[in-house]
Amino acid sequence: MATIHPVIMCGGSGTRLWPVSRKQRPKPFLPLVGEKSLFEATIDRCGGAGGFAPVVVVTGAAHGDLVDSQLGSAPDAQVIVEPAAKNTAAAIALAAVRLPEDAVMLVCPSDHHIADTAAFREAAQKAAALAEAGWLVSLGITPHSPETGFGYIKTGEALDGGFKVERFVEKPDLERAKAFLADGGYSWNGGIFAFRAGTFLEELRKHEPAIADKVEAAVAAGRISGHCFHPDAATFARIEGESVDYAVMEKTDRAAMVPVDMGWSDIGNFQALRDARPGDEDGNRTSGNVELVDCSNVLAQSDGPRISVIGLSDVAVIVDGDEILVTTMEGAQKVGKLKGAANQ
Amino acid sequence: MATIHPVIMCGGSGTRLWPVSRKQRPKPFLPLVGEKSLFEATIDRCGGAGGFAPVVVVTGAAHGDLVDSQLGSAPDAQVIVEPAAKNTAAAIALAAVRLPEDAVMLVCPSDHHIADTAAFREAAQKAAALAEAGWLVSLGITPHSPETGFGYIKTGEALDGGFKVERFVEKPDLERAKAFLADGGYSWNGGIFAFRAGTFLEELRKHEPAIADKVEAAVAAGRISGHCFHPDAATFARIEGESVDYAVMEKTDRAAMVPVDMGWSDIGNFQALRDARPGDEDGNRTSGNVELVDCSNVLAQSDGPRISVIGLSDVAVIVDGDEILVTTMEGAQKVGKLKGAANQ
Repeated sequence: MATIHPVIMCGGSGTRLWPVSRKQRPKPFLPLVGEKSLFEATIDRCGGAGGFAPVVVVTGAAHGDLVDSQLGSAPDAQVIVEPAAKNTAAAIALAAVRLPEDAVMLVCPSDHHIADTAAFREAAQKAAALAEAGWLVSLGITPHSPETGFGYIKTGEALDGGFKVERFVEKPDLERAKAFLADGGYSWNGGIFAFRAGTFLEELRKHEPAIADKVEAAVAAGRISGHCFHPDAATFARIEGESVDYAVMEKTDRAAMVPVDMGWSDIGNFQALRDARPGDEDGNRTSGNVELVDCSNVLAQSDGPRISVIGLSDVAVIVDGDEILVTTMEGAQKVGKLKGAANQ
Repeated sequence: MATIHPVIMCGGSGTRLWPVSRKQRPKPFLPLVGEKSLFEATIDRCGGAGGFAPVVVVTGAAHGDLVDSQLGSAPDAQVIVEPAAKNTAAAIALAAVRLPEDAVMLVCPSDHHIADTAAFREAAQKAAALAEAGWLVSLGITPHSPETGFGYIKTGEALDGGFKVERFVEKPDLERAKAFLADGGYSWNGGIFAFRAGTFLEELRKHEPAIADKVEAAVAAGRISGHCFHPDAATFARIEGESVDYAVMEKTDRAAMVPVDMGWSDIGNFQALRDARPGDEDGNRTSGNVELVDCSNVLAQSDGPRISVIGLSDVAVIVDGDEILVTTMEGAQKVGKLKGAANQ
């Protein structure tokens, strides 16, 4: 069984969870579901019992202190500090260059919630086995609703422990999303990937050689400081940012997928946050000082002052510091567009 | 033309406007519509140009300082301080006993909003003329919706400048309220009354002699302190509290009414507060630091932190000190039942 090298990506800012998530206190580092932050939960999921090597964290300089403060359960972690945000292709490539060529990487976003760790680990092992056989593997999240906010993966012919990817599909409109759900042959692309470091770099060089070159040069000119690795900033700055989906996964003919149903959520907005938390008998989720009267499916959360809500359904009421947000669940998609959110 | 002695009643606590209105900062003394408090606006409505004597304010001891601080435009006001809250019959009787027997009193609640002062003053003059002729006169507010929160007055036969009251009707259910509105012969009882002090006391003595006796005794044993009059507390404490409607107006055969359409509101809940304020083109009313996206007919008010609201209609979002209230307009009726509101 392949040893898995978890590569934990700490990039997202999570503006759609403002004012809970803010520039100086981004989404991965918040305890949005349960006691631990999403980042800590991601580390725990990839740690402990056999089969997992120490984690590699890829993060921006601005979040270095937050990462360090939450690495308690992974004292042997390595941290790669991106000098600039250059999207996921370059971030993953940094880790790939730093790891042995035959290491099986498991790329994990740090701002998602996964309820069923056992299902995750089983899928990770299957994906790792396919990765050892030379495939670039996506975990394909079993969809339970016609989401328009995710890319989809069309399942192809069967492999041992998974399937070939027939194709990746960009975020669909609602009609297409419903058709995908009805079809049954489509999964959500949750951004969790397994491949050998060498395989990934081969494919990156083939399809985006400029990114591969510059990442290798930035690593070659980089420096180690304690448990952190700093790629050369000037070289890294010249990289054209590209997503790993666009740069590699959609172009390679070695794309495979492992379907998994593991209670996954990207906690992409307040509706998703509500749904990831356990509710009371009326579907309400409260935290902090909250009084509800005649409410259902309400998410109400305060870090201080009391919130009283009367007669509402499917709204989020968020009180955080000097900001108060009240939004319908549909409107939760637009939170990132608020003037307030844009500034913080 | 009769000189009118305004008697301004400062009793209501306004718990249905919590957290804006609180025990220590009750509704009459808040600038809910415009720059002035409802109390100040009530004084202004009854002051200035001819026909009005200096105001008499009847209030509880707890509100004495608030009254004094807002009496700026009525330096010659007299204040009667109730030693205990004993409802409106006793409160009005206190003023009646203190005034000359032939003085025409105009009893005005201090926690209502009246948009059209000229219409109010015209109706007050008509009511005063009827009061001089021995009637006990209610202003009958022209209804514009089938409100179930008010008592109604059924108009009787015509008098010079008004009508006899055929009968007073308790708060109706919605079906009856709709029938009253369709009938056209019903007005809201807004708690604004005109009568001669002596006439009122005669009728009170006739229908509730115990209240009349005790009020007279409490005044006889009372004391003056500056511009304040303090009835004897021990005597006053033995009064059985009763509303003026039940004690006098519904029982007398001298009840008259003057219909008036003057943009009246009791600001009885957040829906009424919203409707008393001018809205923007989407019907939204905001004050303080508020950002609205895709909202209509929203009342949003903050005394500090920013409020952001997305996608909601017909809700109130109230931020006041350490309390945050979010309610539908229907739910606004229930605000007084919140645990928080009950304690403050």
